[in-house]
Amino acid sequence: MTKNITAEVAQPVYTGVGQPTSNVDHAALRIWLRLLTCHNLVETRLRNQLRNGFETTLPRFDLMAQLDRHPEGLKMRDLSRLLMVTGGNITGLTDRLVDEGLIERRDDPRDRRAFSVCLTPKGKTQFQEMAAQHEQWVSSLFGDFEEKEMNQLSDLLGKLKRHLSALPPVA
Amino acid sequence: MTKNITAEVAQPVYTGVGQPTSNVDHAALRIWLRLLTCHNLVETRLRNQLRNGFETTLPRFDLMAQLDRHPEGLKMRDLSRLLMVTGGNITGLTDRLVDEGLIERRDDPRDRRAFSVCLTPKGKTQFQEMAAQHEQWVSSLFGDFEEKEMNQLSDLLGKLKRHLSALPPVA
Repeated sequence: MTKNITAEVAQPVYTGVGQPTSNVDHAALRIWLRLLTCHNLVETRLRNQLRNGFETTLPRFDLMAQLDRHPEGLKMRDLSRLLMVTGGNITGLTDRLVDEGLIERRDDPRDRRAFSVCLTPKGKTQFQEMAAQHEQWVSSLFGDFEEKEMNQLSDLLGKLKRHLSALPPVA
Repeated sequence: MTKNITAEVAQPVYTGVGQPTSNVDHAALRIWLRLLTCHNLVETRLRNQLRNGFETTLPRFDLMAQLDRHPEGLKMRDLSRLLMVTGGNITGLTDRLVDEGLIERRDDPRDRRAFSVCLTPKGKTQFQEMAAQHEQWVSSLFGDFEEKEMNQLSDLLGKLKRHLSALPPVA
């Protein structure tokens, strides 16, 4: 029962009923809706797994992941941009992680008003533990995929990602 | 410049550095990160396009899409579940759409406390106009894909979706 609800919850149901459109349009819409459903199902699982396994949230995990990738530290505005959330949210989140000793602020010698944040050794250890588990959770999502299919899907999404990144931005 | 920032913004950067994991785990993680990036890039574009083209938001569009698919009407709790947001958000959103004459409440003869919402004729017309445009926006995202690649990607995402939907829920 719960399973069915979860599955249904994450189903985008927009069917594109409306003016007549081409088969290519319908095929594109079907791909997007499937991608959206897969995204929602995976994100919901990972969110629950992080909560149950580490009593943490996806935004916290994502923030620590960014800092793990930038050991030199990140300014708040860069962090905010990378995480696509408002400055306000990031500020509250970093405050709590600082209080917990997982990240630390570093003054910028060139600009007193700017500072960077980076993982503390404790934060790095905790993140790496979560990251290893996270990778196994993600791996288990593709249980019945053959290696050839994994490679195909990876290549096609890579191509789509490159194409999307090169599109002119929406004015 | 803006383009690069947009692309960078939407890049999930978690690299899975940590304990040693298998190649399969890395392949799965790469697929998930690519899917996540594609999702974020597409959603950002559609959000901006809906705002610029129709002065509307993605949650409004999604809510109207759900009602378009359920012409018999939806109860608030079903709508909320389908849209994966809190009851509070849905209530505010439906109130505004009712005020604008795009959706209407219908009493449930069997339960005075329950009511359904459905699109008004005006709402249906407006949604279909947006839906046709939305489908063309989505279609343009796959500009350089061949039909064969579209079919492959659609099939692989369909398989992943079925697999994810059948997984036992996270306890």
